[in-house]
This record gives sequence, C-alpha cells and structure tokens, in this order.
Amino acid sequence: MKCDTLWRDARLATLVDGAPGLGVVEDGVIAAKDGDIVYAGPAGDAPALEADESIGCEGRWITPGLIDCHTHLVHGGNRAGEFEQRLAGASYEEVARAGGGIVSTMRATRAASEDELVAGALRRLDALIAEGVTAVEVKSGYGLSTEDEMKMLRAARRLELARGVQVATTFLGAHALPPERRDDPDGYIDEVCETMLPAVAGARLADAVDAFCEGIGFTATQTERVFEAARRYGLPVKLHAEQLSNLRGAALAARYGALSADHLEHLDADGVAAMKRAGTVATLLPGAFYFTRETKLPPIAALRDAGVPIALATDCNPGTSPLTSILLVLNMGATLFRLTVNECITGVTRNAARALGLEGRIGTLEAGKACDLAIWDIEQPADLVYRMGFNPLHARIWRGQ
Amino acid sequence: MKCDTLWRDARLATLVDGAPGLGVVEDGVIAAKDGDIVYAGPAGDAPALEADESIGCEGRWITPGLIDCHTHLVHGGNRAGEFEQRLAGASYEEVARAGGGIVSTMRATRAASEDELVAGALRRLDALIAEGVTAVEVKSGYGLSTEDEMKMLRAARRLELARGVQVATTFLGAHALPPERRDDPDGYIDEVCETMLPAVAGARLADAVDAFCEGIGFTATQTERVFEAARRYGLPVKLHAEQLSNLRGAALAARYGALSADHLEHLDADGVAAMKRAGTVATLLPGAFYFTRETKLPPIAALRDAGVPIALATDCNPGTSPLTSILLVLNMGATLFRLTVNECITGVTRNAARALGLEGRIGTLEAGKACDLAIWDIEQPADLVYRMGFNPLHARIWRGQ
Ligand SMILES: [Zn+2]
Ligand SMILES: [Zn+2]
Repeated sequence: MKCDTLWRDARLATLVDGAPGLGVVEDGVIAAKDGDIVYAGPAGDAPALEADESIGCEGRWITPGLIDCHTHLVHGGNRAGEFEQRLAGASYEEVARAGGGIVSTMRATRAASEDELVAGALRRLDALIAEGVTAVEVKSGYGLSTEDEMKMLRAARRLELARGVQVATTFLGAHALPPERRDDPDGYIDEVCETMLPAVAGARLADAVDAFCEGIGFTATQTERVFEAARRYGLPVKLHAEQLSNLRGAALAARYGALSADHLEHLDADGVAAMKRAGTVATLLPGAFYFTRETKLPPIAALRDAGVPIALATDCNPGTSPLTSILLVLNMGATLFRLTVNECITGVTRNAARALGLEGRIGTLEAGKACDLAIWDIEQPADLVYRMGFNPLHARIWRGQ
Repeated sequence: MKCDTLWRDARLATLVDGAPGLGVVEDGVIAAKDGDIVYAGPAGDAPALEADESIGCEGRWITPGLIDCHTHLVHGGNRAGEFEQRLAGASYEEVARAGGGIVSTMRATRAASEDELVAGALRRLDALIAEGVTAVEVKSGYGLSTEDEMKMLRAARRLELARGVQVATTFLGAHALPPERRDDPDGYIDEVCETMLPAVAGARLADAVDAFCEGIGFTATQTERVFEAARRYGLPVKLHAEQLSNLRGAALAARYGALSADHLEHLDADGVAAMKRAGTVATLLPGAFYFTRETKLPPIAALRDAGVPIALATDCNPGTSPLTSILLVLNMGATLFRLTVNECITGVTRNAARALGLEGRIGTLEAGKACDLAIWDIEQPADLVYRMGFNPLHARIWRGQ
C-alpha cells in the first residue's frame, strides 16, 4: 500500500472502541495518506507499506491527538483582578458591585474587536496545542447580542485557519442574561431563539447549541425552548447541567438527544439513566470543580456502572476555570474525581470526540480516521495522568503532518 | 555608572522587604554588572547608566527569578504505576506488597547511576526553569546509605553545572528507614549522625540538613539527634514537620534556629509562636496537600497574624507531589490555602530565599543581589496566580544573562 508517512517502532494507545483498556499495541505502526490513517496496529499484521517518509519512534507512545470538548477559549478581558480581590476578602457582592463577574467578561467581549478576540484566544489555544491537543470545542456566550455572539463564533472559526487544529463551535446565547434584559429573561430567550439562532445558523457559524440551565442561568422551560429552536435548524444540542443544583437538565438534554451534558455535580439517578438511554456523554469539568472549591462530586460510580461515556475537558473560561492544560485536567480527573487512568485518557480522546459528534472522524487510532496524533516521551500512559505541570509531548501530528 | 545590561520600560515587582505589597515600580529600570544588580527602581531615580546592552521591555513585568525552596528533584524510578493501581482500587497495603511506596523509589535510586539521576532530574528541572525558576533546593533522602545519599547530592550539585540555576542541597538521610534497618531505627539514626553526615559534610555536599519528623518517619528525639549532629558540622537545619500529625516538630526545629519548617498542616499555636521567635519560615506545600487529598489546612490565619514568613514550593517528589510547575503552586496556594496574590508571589521569591538562608543574595530586585530575573507577558502580577497551566514567561535571566 502506498502512503505518505509511516510511524514505526511505536507503542500505540489506539483507544479503539471495544478493545480492552486503552487498546494498546506494543510494537505498533501507523500509516497516513492524504491526512487520514490508512493503517494503525501491530507491525506484524500491517500490509506491505510504501511510504514517502518513514519515522522511527524509538518505542515512544502514540495516542490520538487530545480533544478539549468544552471550552470558552474566545473571550475578552481578564478576571485576575477579581480573583485577587476575593482572596483579599471581598465578597461576591462587592466584586459584582466593583464591576466583576460574568458581566465584566461580557463587557470586555463586546468591546473587543474580532481580531482582538482571535489574538487572545490563540495564546490559550497555543497552550493546549503544546500539550498535543488537535481538536477543541469553543463556545460563544459572552456576547449576548446577535452581533457579539456572531463575532465570537467567527473568531472561533478563525482559530482553525490560524493553526492546525479542528474547532467545533457551539452557540451559547443562553449563557447568561445581559444586563439590558435583567427584567425580561423570557424576552431574551425569544431573542436567542428567533433572532440570534437563525442568524448564527444561517451563517453556519455553530456546530451545536448549548445553554446554561441553572438557578443563576435559565430554567428548564427556557432551556427547552432553546433546544426546540436548535432542532428547527438541525443543530445538535448540549447543556451546562446540574452544576450548582439539580434542575433535571441532563434528563431534559437527553430527551433532545444531546451530545453531552456537562458539569453534572448534582446529577441524580434518573438523569444518569436518561443519559444512558440517549447515548449522551457526561462531560466532567474538574478544573471548575477545583477552582470554585466545589465539594459535591459528580456521581462517578453511577455513571460508570450505567456505562455512560465520560469525557473530561478544561472548561477554559475566565470566571470559574482559567485553565489551559489538558494534561492537568487528566490529573484532576484522577485526583479529584478518582477516575482511573484509562477513564481519564478515554475522556480526552474517544469520548471527547463523541461529545462533539465527531466520533466518526477523530478520537481513536484506526483506519479511516483523521491522522491526528500525539507522540509522547513517557514510559506508560499513566505518566500522562500522574504528573502535574509536566509536558512530555514529543511531537504532535495534525492531519498527517 | 557603567553596567553590562540595562532592562528599561519595565514594571517591577521588586519584593523588597518593607515595601508595601510587592514593591511595585511602574516605570522601572534594572541595571546589571558582573551578574549582580547595580540598580533596580524607578527610571526617574536612576543614576546615569551606560550599558553595553539596553533592552526595552515594552511595559512587561519583571519579578525576581522564582525560587523552588523544597524539592526532591533527584530520584530514580517512577510511581505512575502505583498511582494507577490505587485509582483502580488497590489499597496502600496492596501497593506496598507489590513493591510500591517510598521503598520502591529508594530501590530505583540506589540502582541508578549518578548520570542517570542527573538526566532524570534535568527533565524535571527544565520544566521549572521554563517557568522562570532560577534557584532550586534539592534534597537527598532516597539513598538511605552513605554511598547512595552522597550519589544523590553529587547529582544535585551537578544540576548547577548543567544549567544556569542555583542549587541549594539538603541532606535528608533521616527521610525514611531503609528496609535493612527495619527493626533498628535508632541504629539508623546513629549511622545518619556518625557516618553519613560526617561524610556529606566533609565533601561539602550539603548546604543544610533536613529530617522527616512524623509517626511514619522519625520521632522528635531522633530528629533532635540529627539536629545536634548538624550543629556540630555548622550546617543549618530544616524539617518536614506536622504533615500528618502534631509531633511538635516545628517548635523543635525553631529551637535549633531552623531555616524552615515545611508542610505544617497540623501545626499548633505554640509551634507558630516558636517559629515566629526563631524567624523560621513556614514552607507550605500545596501540591502534596492536593495530590494526597488532604483536608486539614495549615493554620494560615495564625501564621499570617503572627507574621511568620510563608514560602511555597513544589515538594516535587514521586510519591506525594509529582509536580514540576511553580506557577501551579502559586494557584494552589491561593485556591486551596486562600493565600493572597501577594503572599503567593512573596512565597516563591523573598520568603523562599529566606527558607534557604539565601536572602542576602536572591529573592528581591535590589542593588547587590544576583541579577536573576523573570520577565513576564502579563497585565498584572495576579495573572501569575490566577491562571492554571499557562506559562506567560517572556524571558529568564540568570546572573545577568
Ligand atoms: Zn462551560
Ligand atoms: Zn518533601
């Protein structure tokens, strides 16, 4: 078989569905042609491969390129000052009165040009890319007007042109109530469904639709209206659900066949069962759990026992998770949530792909998938989870290059 | 004044003792000659400076080079497998029976050559250096025989020759009981005091002496014998104290004028008062607190109220803190321990220098100190503490270069 590039003398964590553990191949080979994998598996089973370039990996480990399936990478401003004030003893109220909180990010995002949003997001994206990330989800949700939400999503799309990385965009108009709509949440949801979403969908700026279903966000009824609108435009949905309380958002999301329900600290047994039936991924966000000093753990054992696929992501955002390390997410998933090494790694590869509806294209090492690879200077996959603040990436391949 | 290099158009966090906050200078200049700072302060107050090289910093922030004042960077082996087993449900006992725990690190360290120890430590050191670290403490304590402890300390000294970094070495023979001495802890302490320490001191391999005073380590009486021996050789002491229980180790250390007492989760009011009287630094290790899922917080308010200087460090070690990010330590100090931004930054600069007895040479930006700088692409010092997994280092200067 002719191919462009061959990686040999590698240990593979293929993550192929159905294989035990991480689908490990000890003496592995990967062949790529036109950006896709044409063979990934044991050297002994490989067809005769004729490659333009053949790369010896000296026994290094190769995983699928990592996937960060829940981020707010595009945003204006910086909330370090608010963080500092709170450590110095200021209450949430005092911070809000001083112009802090999500509204400050909204103001900074509205004030920023599209170019400025791209430049800011690229610094954060580059930190992820340096750790082997090859696909990233990016949400809107700090514009909260048609124009500013579209500006955020255009900035997100431009990240893909600026770097070798796949970007999945998510419209999150129902993230928070803009101050000008303070007394009219239903009117704002009207605007989300009848103005913003049609504009966003018409411009093909969103690959999915998300909402924040929470006491401080939107009600289940309002969320359902957003999901109905998404359905009209043929867009899959996902949901920020059960982070601070149980509004049964995950079950609602599952009824709409959601790709994922995210956060889930307060998820109950009915929600777990509904997610299992719908095939909805549980995307856990340990960075936000850590940064907000949450103590309520998501129901890991129930999710595991039910067989709900678990993904992990940074939730990179300025208010509750200013985190740009997917490797640190792996450690937090294990240390804080007691996920196993295999669950953590599956959570940023195969299951993260599924949380984006991209499981047919990325997330595993197998023929027919995009050739997105992370090549690691490690002794064993557990090293990726065990260490904190250490980056053993040897090379990152995106679409075969 | 003639000088070698001038950094201008910078914002300085000088950390000078007695200055309010971080000793900020908005329009700052630093001049270096022969590796030392000859001026650091406002551009307006600077003498006439004639420099071979003049570097415009475009308003970037400059802090002292960061100092990691408590590490076990030199060690053999890897405990990722043990980490993985524990997540999969194995008990501490099962892990120990399978050859895990500190004894596994001792075995791997004994089996490693000095070159191998240097090579392993350099990977971890390079991660710290990439974040602006210019001085690091390195302990022995996994050799637990004269020969192997000296091998570790020689490896630590060699790090300084391999990279532009200052290394302070600490002899930690009283870290754990080697298995061959299982039934004879006092006999082992005899060996530490009468054989190891004289050999180490004679070869000038240690800048300080440390011990692990704990139920699973050594008693206060045994620790005191080590301190007495250190005194005979004119070496300052420090102590792993009050991590898991209160053996009044910090007060004991203070009686010996210890540079620092480290960990301190179980420190009591008497210990705080004794440390204050002795000028002993409280070195807090949030990475170990996080990784071991400790819930007992060190008595931050009592330390703060008493005016005990607080330092922060990685405690980089394979068993309880496989952490090689000093920036993550800053975030953990704030998030987990609720230290303020200024306390965190002071803890890895001025107070970390003091924990090493090096406050006369490093840790602040002022004339007469070594010109060790970290130059940052940040808007405000709080950015260094607020973000997780993001490295905004623009440049690192060691001894003026
Ligand atoms: Zn989010
Ligand atoms: Zn230690």
